[in-house]
Amino acid sequence: MAPRIACIVRFIKNQTIQITMSEPSPPTPHYRRIAEMLRLTLTSGALRTGDRIISARKLAEREQVSLPTALEALRYLEAEGLIIARPRSGYFVRQIIPAGETQSTASVPVPVPVTMSAIARSLFGSAEARLVPLGAALPDPAWLPVDTLHRALQTAGRRLDARGQSYSLPPGRADLRRKIAARAAQWGALFGADDLIITAGATQALRLALRAVCRPGDAVAIEQPAYFGTLLLLEDLGLKALQIPTDPVEGLLLAPLEEAIQRHRPAAVLASPTVQNPSGASMPVARKRDLVALLASKGIPLIEDDVYGDLAGDAQRPPACKAFDRCGNVIYCSSLSKTLAPGWRIGWIAAGRYHSTVLQARMAGEWAGAPLIEAAANEILASGDYDRHLRHLKLHIAQGIQAIIAKVETSFPPGTRVAAPEAGFLIWVTLPSQIDALEVHRRALALGIGVSPGPLFSPGAAELKNFLRLNGANEPTRHLLNAVEQLGLLCHELAAGH
Amino acid sequence: MAPRIACIVRFIKNQTIQITMSEPSPPTPHYRRIAEMLRLTLTSGALRTGDRIISARKLAEREQVSLPTALEALRYLEAEGLIIARPRSGYFVRQIIPAGETQSTASVPVPVPVTMSAIARSLFGSAEARLVPLGAALPDPAWLPVDTLHRALQTAGRRLDARGQSYSLPPGRADLRRKIAARAAQWGALFGADDLIITAGATQALRLALRAVCRPGDAVAIEQPAYFGTLLLLEDLGLKALQIPTDPVEGLLLAPLEEAIQRHRPAAVLASPTVQNPSGASMPVARKRDLVALLASKGIPLIEDDVYGDLAGDAQRPPACKAFDRCGNVIYCSSLSKTLAPGWRIGWIAAGRYHSTVLQARMAGEWAGAPLIEAAANEILASGDYDRHLRHLKLHIAQGIQAIIAKVETSFPPGTRVAAPEAGFLIWVTLPSQIDALEVHRRALALGIGVSPGPLFSPGAAELKNFLRLNGANEPTRHLLNAVEQLGLLCHELAAGH
Repeated sequence: MAPRIACIVRFIKNQTIQITMSEPSPPTPHYRRIAEMLRLTLTSGALRTGDRIISARKLAEREQVSLPTALEALRYLEAEGLIIARPRSGYFVRQIIPAGETQSTASVPVPVPVTMSAIARSLFGSAEARLVPLGAALPDPAWLPVDTLHRALQTAGRRLDARGQSYSLPPGRADLRRKIAARAAQWGALFGADDLIITAGATQALRLALRAVCRPGDAVAIEQPAYFGTLLLLEDLGLKALQIPTDPVEGLLLAPLEEAIQRHRPAAVLASPTVQNPSGASMPVARKRDLVALLASKGIPLIEDDVYGDLAGDAQRPPACKAFDRCGNVIYCSSLSKTLAPGWRIGWIAAGRYHSTVLQARMAGEWAGAPLIEAAANEILASGDYDRHLRHLKLHIAQGIQAIIAKVETSFPPGTRVAAPEAGFLIWVTLPSQIDALEVHRRALALGIGVSPGPLFSPGAAELKNFLRLNGANEPTRHLLNAVEQLGLLCHELAAGH
Repeated sequence: MAPRIACIVRFIKNQTIQITMSEPSPPTPHYRRIAEMLRLTLTSGALRTGDRIISARKLAEREQVSLPTALEALRYLEAEGLIIARPRSGYFVRQIIPAGETQSTASVPVPVPVTMSAIARSLFGSAEARLVPLGAALPDPAWLPVDTLHRALQTAGRRLDARGQSYSLPPGRADLRRKIAARAAQWGALFGADDLIITAGATQALRLALRAVCRPGDAVAIEQPAYFGTLLLLEDLGLKALQIPTDPVEGLLLAPLEEAIQRHRPAAVLASPTVQNPSGASMPVARKRDLVALLASKGIPLIEDDVYGDLAGDAQRPPACKAFDRCGNVIYCSSLSKTLAPGWRIGWIAAGRYHSTVLQARMAGEWAGAPLIEAAANEILASGDYDRHLRHLKLHIAQGIQAIIAKVETSFPPGTRVAAPEAGFLIWVTLPSQIDALEVHRRALALGIGVSPGPLFSPGAAELKNFLRLNGANEPTRHLLNAVEQLGLLCHELAAGH
């Protein structure tokens, strides 16, 4: 708690009250000083929910800082849920802080132990039933190219013959690695087949990455909110989570990250800069470059989870952070699970200067791979099938997302906020603050509807209580949209205190 | 080193030399006292290599102990490589200890750190080339039922349709678990489908088992020699190896195990009581029952690796230790990798009273499974295909083993010892003591021949220097037998000091 207290003290110092502090603190960055001042404005009673607040340009002028610094301050408050940006209109008050509650809720990030696996287990348990699939982050099976997948398996089986039934050894099938590297080169990646290791999905890749650069007890900087699979891995490996404020549109905020690094020196940063789970945020390309430069200068590795990256962009997907990596500091992890074939368990890792460490770890653990599946994945990447499928999938997703969001907007209680993600298929819904998403989850389950409640995305399963993640990659059938409507009714009941 | 020194001291005490000991030791068990006395005989110069030594019956009479205790003493020296049993002839001197080297080489087991992954990596690296497959422990791909496997994948794909491409969640496909439980019931297992979790091969199962019952730094009692995959897992998890003398025919010796437990209280025992890798040993059924009872009484879990179990026996395979487990203390791990389809990565774990811990760990890590493969495995177990295949496979193996052993006997230098394993397909060869198996491996590699050198099966990669494991599950083609002959020539050269 010490850093949080220090923050309040500094805040009071701005009001010219002098307090002797027992421990010296690093100087407060400009954006934080400005954000705390704006926070005070929100408690003053001068503004009400929905009011427009000062523009970034005016704020920069008034505070004599650069425009990016002013924007960072606004984004910081937005990440805390206090204000909200509306395209081409500026920032608006989203939540008024009652007088007396001037303390920053997000405050300075502090490493915390991860203890959310119990809630994840309870959700896994409920997934066995056939639920309306608004919970798990998986594309509608009907949108997967099932015939192509079966054909690829058959072709691979014929070509490999008996060898297809044997083990594959790390780093995995060479021509598959060549094709993955060639695809990544299109968005600017500089790794080759020899820099890649095939893994059992991105989950194994992330585990290998964390094992390569962290020791138990280390802190890992992650996004807030964070993918629950990342949190599970941190908990399983005995690592602490250092949550970094994350803009719901533009992703990880660099100023708070830099501050957190200064104070807590995390062993790694693990983030999804392109289509974040659950928020759907994607960092602008310039910010990705800055992130890579920042971490290279600090000597802290970036573990980049890019499983949704192929769903971003139109004709060409945007570069991952790995494209800007010049010193092997970015450990890039991806898979075919979110775009092509979740059950094939084909992922990969390009670990930069940690390559040999990761390869050693892979050989020291679950080293046997599945040659038939690797060969089938190679068949698909060798043809144009994957790109054709991606184009269709993105069209389907856009329609699914649109239909579900329209239904949320008409069915959910006032105060609900939802925005279409720029890419990917995850819909991050903010419910009115009195609604408990875990209760929504429980009641939805009783109706045969799956949803992912916000606490699943926080280290202690104790935050994000009024958030829901909906899977937007579903054919918007009447059955599906009825389920969304039922969720809305549920939320109305809970909002009314039933 | 302390216990080893204590042992020498005790040994000297038997010679009526009194030495004050700083720490009290547990009393020496009878079998050890007798073994140490026999060891002295082997240094006396009275016997030469090949001489018969005292029979178990006479030894029991002379020492006034039971016949099993006398046998245990002889087996202990056999496990150390000093004497050798010949069927219906008794025990013979295998190796004379030079005077002055009275110290037991195996001595009292002490937990040691595992540091053999470097050698394993170098062997993995060399496996990429197309080698004559005498190294890896895999059945000849030509002996796998490739058509059956492809057909099962296709049928499963049709039945599952798009759902086959999604994730499978722990504990895995229910009807596959039912079939695995039903098969295990045939050899007396008492677990049901609900007690099973499908894993990515037995390697994941063993990792989950170790994680469930050990903490870093703990000691795990293992066989000596041990499967290198087990050693890799111990190293990766920061666990120490407590090597228990293991009879080359009858497996783990219980008296040394009990003594080691008394002294070092390992967190678990990990063993392959049915067809051990690399020795091929199988514990007699009564000894399995005793092992289960011993560990239950001590409250130490047994992690049972049974991946070769289905290759033992004729019409009916012998029971695994799990059959005698009445209190959930046996964590049973197996897979289809050694008998049906290595690349399918289908394994399972029946973790007894650790079931929920293991299930939690599975959900906290690599939780996504492969539904298409699980469904295909279910198809094969549902038909009679697996049993038909096992019958054919065992016939093939018997022929392969016989041909390879015959070739070893005619090609390898005098002093080489090799015995046909009672079951399974691993041939454990003892080379004359001056031959370095790592050098055999290096030279064989240059000739395009794979072998597994003994040090791969010891925690520090520093022991078993004159042992080789050969894979006997190969069609005995002229090419293969020529390779065995080339290995023999190599060994002749090395024996002659080239």
